[in-house]
Amino acid sequence: MAQFENLDRTCINTIRMLSADAVQAAGSGHPGMPMGAASIGYILWTRFLKHNPANSQWPDRDRFILSAGHGSMLLYSLLHLTGYELSLEELKRYRQWGSKTPGHPEYGLTPGVEATTGPLGQGFGNGVGMAAAERFLAAHFNRQGYELVNHFTYVFCSDGDLMEGVSHETASLAGHLKLGKLIYLYDDNKTSIEGSTDLAFTENRIVRFEAYGWHVQQVEDANDLTALEEAIVNAQEEKNRPSLISVRTIIGYGSPGKQGTASAHGEALGSEELQLTKKNLGWPQEPAFYVPDEALRHFRKALSTGENLENQWKSRFQVYEQEYPDLARQWKAWLNKELPSDWASDIPSFPSDAKGMATRQASGKVLNAIAPRIPNLIGGSADLAPSTKTLLQEEKSFQADSYDGRNFHFGVREHGMGAMLNGMALHGGLIPYGATFLIFSDYMRPPIRLAALMQLRVIYVFTHDSIGLGEDGPTHQPVEQLAALRAIPGLTLIRPCDANETAEALRLAVESDKGPVALSLTRQGVPTLDRKNLGPAQGLRRGAYVLCDLDVTDNRPEIILMGSGSEVYIALEAAKRLQKKNISVRVVSMPSWALFERQEQEYQDKVLPASISARVAVEAGTSQGWHRYVGSRGRVVTLEHFGASASHQVLFEKFGFTAGHVEEKALLLLNKQ
Amino acid sequence: MAQFENLDRTCINTIRMLSADAVQAAGSGHPGMPMGAASIGYILWTRFLKHNPANSQWPDRDRFILSAGHGSMLLYSLLHLTGYELSLEELKRYRQWGSKTPGHPEYGLTPGVEATTGPLGQGFGNGVGMAAAERFLAAHFNRQGYELVNHFTYVFCSDGDLMEGVSHETASLAGHLKLGKLIYLYDDNKTSIEGSTDLAFTENRIVRFEAYGWHVQQVEDANDLTALEEAIVNAQEEKNRPSLISVRTIIGYGSPGKQGTASAHGEALGSEELQLTKKNLGWPQEPAFYVPDEALRHFRKALSTGENLENQWKSRFQVYEQEYPDLARQWKAWLNKELPSDWASDIPSFPSDAKGMATRQASGKVLNAIAPRIPNLIGGSADLAPSTKTLLQEEKSFQADSYDGRNFHFGVREHGMGAMLNGMALHGGLIPYGATFLIFSDYMRPPIRLAALMQLRVIYVFTHDSIGLGEDGPTHQPVEQLAALRAIPGLTLIRPCDANETAEALRLAVESDKGPVALSLTRQGVPTLDRKNLGPAQGLRRGAYVLCDLDVTDNRPEIILMGSGSEVYIALEAAKRLQKKNISVRVVSMPSWALFERQEQEYQDKVLPASISARVAVEAGTSQGWHRYVGSRGRVVTLEHFGASASHQVLFEKFGFTAGHVEEKALLLLNKQ
Repeated sequence: MAQFENLDRTCINTIRMLSADAVQAAGSGHPGMPMGAASIGYILWTRFLKHNPANSQWPDRDRFILSAGHGSMLLYSLLHLTGYELSLEELKRYRQWGSKTPGHPEYGLTPGVEATTGPLGQGFGNGVGMAAAERFLAAHFNRQGYELVNHFTYVFCSDGDLMEGVSHETASLAGHLKLGKLIYLYDDNKTSIEGSTDLAFTENRIVRFEAYGWHVQQVEDANDLTALEEAIVNAQEEKNRPSLISVRTIIGYGSPGKQGTASAHGEALGSEELQLTKKNLGWPQEPAFYVPDEALRHFRKALSTGENLENQWKSRFQVYEQEYPDLARQWKAWLNKELPSDWASDIPSFPSDAKGMATRQASGKVLNAIAPRIPNLIGGSADLAPSTKTLLQEEKSFQADSYDGRNFHFGVREHGMGAMLNGMALHGGLIPYGATFLIFSDYMRPPIRLAALMQLRVIYVFTHDSIGLGEDGPTHQPVEQLAALRAIPGLTLIRPCDANETAEALRLAVESDKGPVALSLTRQGVPTLDRKNLGPAQGLRRGAYVLCDLDVTDNRPEIILMGSGSEVYIALEAAKRLQKKNISVRVVSMPSWALFERQEQEYQDKVLPASISARVAVEAGTSQGWHRYVGSRGRVVTLEHFGASASHQVLFEKFGFTAGHVEEKALLLLNKQ
Repeated sequence: MAQFENLDRTCINTIRMLSADAVQAAGSGHPGMPMGAASIGYILWTRFLKHNPANSQWPDRDRFILSAGHGSMLLYSLLHLTGYELSLEELKRYRQWGSKTPGHPEYGLTPGVEATTGPLGQGFGNGVGMAAAERFLAAHFNRQGYELVNHFTYVFCSDGDLMEGVSHETASLAGHLKLGKLIYLYDDNKTSIEGSTDLAFTENRIVRFEAYGWHVQQVEDANDLTALEEAIVNAQEEKNRPSLISVRTIIGYGSPGKQGTASAHGEALGSEELQLTKKNLGWPQEPAFYVPDEALRHFRKALSTGENLENQWKSRFQVYEQEYPDLARQWKAWLNKELPSDWASDIPSFPSDAKGMATRQASGKVLNAIAPRIPNLIGGSADLAPSTKTLLQEEKSFQADSYDGRNFHFGVREHGMGAMLNGMALHGGLIPYGATFLIFSDYMRPPIRLAALMQLRVIYVFTHDSIGLGEDGPTHQPVEQLAALRAIPGLTLIRPCDANETAEALRLAVESDKGPVALSLTRQGVPTLDRKNLGPAQGLRRGAYVLCDLDVTDNRPEIILMGSGSEVYIALEAAKRLQKKNISVRVVSMPSWALFERQEQEYQDKVLPASISARVAVEAGTSQGWHRYVGSRGRVVTLEHFGASASHQVLFEKFGFTAGHVEEKALLLLNKQ
């Protein structure tokens, strides 16, 4: 350790020992990574990171993502030491109920945490989304001599991140997009939970990332601060390629009995080993959570430096505001999640049409109608735009030579798309959307879940949403995907029944600024309902609404038929058949359970009166969850097995999604057959 | 095309035109890939593939996976032409109800289809699993001079496969494992659905795969048959590295108006363009589905060649059987999915214990108890074996220098693990299992779904199955994963409540030879129930069973408490409290909805009598689906939001998973509070 200046060494050991003490106090956690990589965090945060700990929301700050979220104490130590609103007391409450220092970093809970991380690979992908967002905003707002946006995105990642497939998907795209302001620090500690990385991870990471078009450097010893510094300088100077700096670290560095072994990874050192470690590093045994004054003073310089940096930016912004008042207004509105007052004025209303159109088609029309008025609505598809109808016809592609393009080409990379959308939303200023077939939502569940957990503003456009997609067969036909998405807390799934409900769904999705919204849309045509005698499509906003009451008096139908999406029309046809048999029937369109559950009980009871127990639900998916709405006596017309390859007409007929079959179920239920 | 011998050209054009005709007749499908890559299929299938079309089950056949499943007509053409049980009539019924030629290849439906493919990347990963299975079986059975197992695994893959993250995960591991008998043919057609691959896919694939430790070759022109042949020969000769042969093709080759464009990818050529194509290729306009006699004769040589090859193998097997009768018997048993009669004799019975043990711990004990008697039970974890308790203590690792090892180290690659498990199961002869935390089942849903669709014998061991994992917090705590897995048709999810139910669950999982079984296990300790006054753990096999009736007469409790896993004990404690208040109560352990639904109605009604509407379900996950069992009047004690970072005791208390809270709910329901 001769190469350390004393102060450097003290600062780095402060991070190491705060981390070890916190994990020891919590009785669980991951000391090894922060101890091994403390020098990386130290160098980056004290010599490079552009941030103001007093204002974690300064828009042009550098972003730092700890993709290896299990090493959360590295981040918490840095946040505390550099002066964020995170007290030493909070560090002492690591992993305890109600603390700001949970096991893995949580966005929105702890100031300075830029992304909720832990599930490996996610932070890796978020970084690429953030860097793309930065480039888009820079292209949109920056003017010669007036730079609002120009920051780096740093990602700290681990072996696990690099093993996960999502790192491949997003690294490949980052290289393609030449995101030069992206700098990844890879903690090459050669240790995984099962043992040495030699057990399963022997690919040549250097060559692999060069193949992606990245600028790759190696630092042979994390304690060689000069080498670390040089590498970061080089990475910053590289303008056209994302950078990977592979840094050789020793997991649990400083622990005489555990360093370099898997046992330093995921459990407390133990009090004895902790003592030995402190002795080994020349650290006082007491108190725990010891922060030397000189170290704190050194770290806290970030406050004055940060204030200066932000003030310089503010000055720039003031000049910009005078020069470009419209853009400055737009800048503020985007960051404050405000929509132009007239944003929705071009949303089309679709005339009733028995032939109708696919809801994906309606979605495409609406998206293209609103896009010109919402210039921060950007997104794309995982190589399915012609099918998902999500291309913005008048806009350019987002590419290395056109960062102002709004159409993203994510490639066949659903998982990467999801992680990037999260990064774009986390960055701020944008309304990102991503599209693929509903079946492939399975490929991107981890980032969808994190979007819900972080309450991000992300829109998913999932098309081809049932056996109704036809001939592509069971591998492509969703059956359980609606249920699986509905199960995610905080995700609003909407499955509109026709073109006008689709317009409402998109309206609501764009307005939702907290938590992701997923649209489930048909491939096949569905009739655009004649609303003359039906409830208006605006009912969608409440999740479920009465589409029609046929011969119903006093809110007491004999039977309620309910459904979503392409099956609502079938329920409606069945209702007409029942009416002909003098049965009073209600049809409820139920595009979103999540929205319905948010309504007051009174509204819910009005739509589905408790006294009416004869109920039939129709949906071309698994029944899971529908029993909540049809009740003990109710029946479901659903699909409890995989689909098949045939035309959608044949499949609907074979699998019972016909007015006749629904009618039959209803009559059986009413004992009228 | 001068480089073609006439017969070669005729055979290749036969594939092209069968494909184009079939898509045209179906009115949908993907003609571009089979037309562009016909020569690859032709060369491989007529000059290299070791197979016997008359017996698609010959165990030592080479495996061929069409990972780019949308090009199914390439495979169907080859199957028909070489003499598999797939008539020309079936090709004419492409993508129609009930045909053997669905939109994407389906395993089990069409003889010769080795894997259901379509969702991109899956077949890529299956291949790695198959090659690993081949090496394991070779190491286990082959003896000097007596080779039972020695075949190649060929995978045909596309740009989309290579973009998907799962290709990274499994390619990296294949390189690590030095699976030299793996040969991938990459259809480099530079065309994706949104347009040129230059839009999003410009990584250097060659260098990337070299970084994984693969042997990589390029063929500049798919119509250069000599080059193709040489490349395959080289790949076969390379013993220590998997091979990638990148072949430059032209999508839709032969179609004058569409070749080389995205529009050749996913729709019929149209009758006019089809005519022009036939003209261009010198093909008769009529009849459609024309197969020249000389082409058919040439392809059908595969029948006699195949018969010879299989007969040679059979002769070898006969000698082997004499030399190694025990091994030969084992070989047959493994392939016939037979278990040794005494396989279960060492399954431990766990004594009742109030402190108990985590069900993951019990699972580890059972797994290690049965492993010695089931030598084809192999598997591992996605770098979590010490936590999932899935290491077979007495066995070696499966590595390049120990293919007889039974412990797989998949690395932090859940998706890849899932795809490989499918490949291992598809190969035949093995009972593969894979383990990770339940939360990360989200990373591997696509292969889990395909395992269910293909009804494969795969076991998933998912641990850390609720907020009960504690301090790692919401990123790691499953909430919706139980519901999401239960929604998959054909997947049997089992969540045992204690050590003895865990033993039963594993017993059932090993016995299940049709369809995957997933175990959901706790991180935290749960009491091992004292069964003296409780229903036996064997009840698990019926999915749900009466654990106890407290003061119940005539099968008429006042209330039924039900739950799964770690919450069953809470229900039991709540029941005792209710009993003290003179309420007659039944407790139902409900480890598996899937198993319960398979019981006759009579049994279901006995466990949950329709007349008892007062029911409370307790599960530390989302309520979705429980209403089916608690009914209109019932209540749920569940979790409708994400978890938090704290000890499991605190979390259970804060989120209402206590006997007191369940009791309270029950009393409210009974109007007794």
